[in-house]
Amino acid sequence: MPDRSEQRILLAHGGGGVLMRELVADIVSRIGTGAGGALQDSAVLPVEKGRIAFTTDTFVVSPLFFPGGDIGRLAVCGTVNDLAVCGARPLYLSLSLVIEEGFPVSSLVRIVDSIAATADEAAVTVVTGDTKVVERGKGDGLFINTSGIGVVPDGVELSSAAARPGDLVLVNGPIGEHGLAILSRREGIDFGGELRSDTAPLSNVIVPLLRETVGIRGMRDATRGGLAAVLNEMAADSRVCIRIEEEAVPISASVRAGCELMGYEPLHIANEGKFVAVVDRNRAEEVLAFLKGNPLGRGAAVIGEVLGEPGGCVVVKTPFGGERVLDLPYGDLLPRIC
Amino acid sequence: MPDRSEQRILLAHGGGGVLMRELVADIVSRIGTGAGGALQDSAVLPVEKGRIAFTTDTFVVSPLFFPGGDIGRLAVCGTVNDLAVCGARPLYLSLSLVIEEGFPVSSLVRIVDSIAATADEAAVTVVTGDTKVVERGKGDGLFINTSGIGVVPDGVELSSAAARPGDLVLVNGPIGEHGLAILSRREGIDFGGELRSDTAPLSNVIVPLLRETVGIRGMRDATRGGLAAVLNEMAADSRVCIRIEEEAVPISASVRAGCELMGYEPLHIANEGKFVAVVDRNRAEEVLAFLKGNPLGRGAAVIGEVLGEPGGCVVVKTPFGGERVLDLPYGDLLPRIC
Repeated sequence: MPDRSEQRILLAHGGGGVLMRELVADIVSRIGTGAGGALQDSAVLPVEKGRIAFTTDTFVVSPLFFPGGDIGRLAVCGTVNDLAVCGARPLYLSLSLVIEEGFPVSSLVRIVDSIAATADEAAVTVVTGDTKVVERGKGDGLFINTSGIGVVPDGVELSSAAARPGDLVLVNGPIGEHGLAILSRREGIDFGGELRSDTAPLSNVIVPLLRETVGIRGMRDATRGGLAAVLNEMAADSRVCIRIEEEAVPISASVRAGCELMGYEPLHIANEGKFVAVVDRNRAEEVLAFLKGNPLGRGAAVIGEVLGEPGGCVVVKTPFGGERVLDLPYGDLLPRIC
Repeated sequence: MPDRSEQRILLAHGGGGVLMRELVADIVSRIGTGAGGALQDSAVLPVEKGRIAFTTDTFVVSPLFFPGGDIGRLAVCGTVNDLAVCGARPLYLSLSLVIEEGFPVSSLVRIVDSIAATADEAAVTVVTGDTKVVERGKGDGLFINTSGIGVVPDGVELSSAAARPGDLVLVNGPIGEHGLAILSRREGIDFGGELRSDTAPLSNVIVPLLRETVGIRGMRDATRGGLAAVLNEMAADSRVCIRIEEEAVPISASVRAGCELMGYEPLHIANEGKFVAVVDRNRAEEVLAFLKGNPLGRGAAVIGEVLGEPGGCVVVKTPFGGERVLDLPYGDLLPRIC
């Protein structure tokens, strides 16, 4: 796929014929650089006896390119992160493209190169793929599905149902950056400061974290629905109450300004490089110290604790000493942020 | 997801909030019937030490409902079939939906029920999922990605590069039915006779076939690009010539009539329940007998043989004794047939 800046994808590129074979060969040759090997209909892979983690996500983000990333980087990280928060070491990805007729080949080249680079960064291999083309007006440029397989090491047992009263709640850094960066690019609003998506492969911090520390009960990456969604999920699954200290939640000045301007709750905003961990109180200090020593955990903080009652509830303690319930958003705050 | 015939999918169903949680719970409750269990962001699954097969496909078929199937049945079978022709026993599927705003909930219900029924038929479990919603005009009703994991039993070694001169080439039944059924429904053309897609889970014939017989070198399911695409792939990978007897290729009267009317080469037409196997000549009789005893192989036939020269070439012997080269189609014969 030489960078033929005038070329566009044709419907015929999806037809199973010579043109599709050429397109797939071009994609494979670029992905192959970072992620090794051919991209077949299926791949046969060695695994050790044990437990594998399996996940899937389709990415429909708009716009395709945004400050701090693009749909390709997002597609690799999103799936890698789902595996990592299960306690798995991500190994293999699949890559399935739905391209709208007329999509510029030059944009496809940039995105495929971003996939290759991010797969390399996350130490995963793209092993199997698929390409479809839909007519102009029946898609939106490019949708990408990545599915992923990882291996869960013996002894790792994480669950969103394992939080116990007394546990502490940690986050690995400042929240809301992905959602606000997408919004800012989409609407052309400048919230001040350098607002960039936090899209990153969390396995690069979680895999060593689980190897080097103990006491982590469960983790979730805080994507759509933000911290509010994952905290509510953990509170419900564990039948506990989670209380967050509003002032303890790390958040940049530009995200705070953007949320105030738009009337958003920062805890509802999507992240693509942030996870919440529920940790045994006696181990929280070591976990926090480990996180702060990793580039993807430098901004980590304890943001709250687990209480017994009322089960299934998340409350936020405000700077003024009051408490409010933190619900899920009802519908869609920011469509197509991932 | 009660059958609320007037309801339509909202953009807000994709937002990570309450509405999305309800939609996903509804989907899970229906899939769960046939395929057991919750549909989490990721699933942790037991595997034996050995080799797993991993595959992905996004389905963009238009129309979503067609004679003999729908996009849900197709999405399960397409991925199951990619695993089966690797020699794998399919175990787990992921399910990722991209829904266009305004899509009728009643259609989604039908498709999800079809996924559940087909997963049951194929003895696979849907273990993880994802749901996205895009604005009206940015998709086309519904796209479905399924990725799949299977286990390759010890001793099974299939490869498209393993064909040897003297081997015979088999197909498990009449060709072209899927492509022509889609075309007939899409264009409103009646080709005469009962034209139905052959969409079926090939693992139900291939898994027992590989257990009970020997001598199979390699297999491919003949989807986009038809028999021509897989025969060319095998000829290229094995550096052999494959010669097909045109008269030996099973084909129904309606598919033949449709191809003649439209000027199509039947060997280019997509199938969704047909595979080509290259078999040791001395074992071909047993393989054929086994196939004919299975509902998915009743129409099986030996259609050709493997020659040494010229490598990478597929030729068709016509009823008149002539020979012609069978190439891939250049571009797109029938867009969006899968």
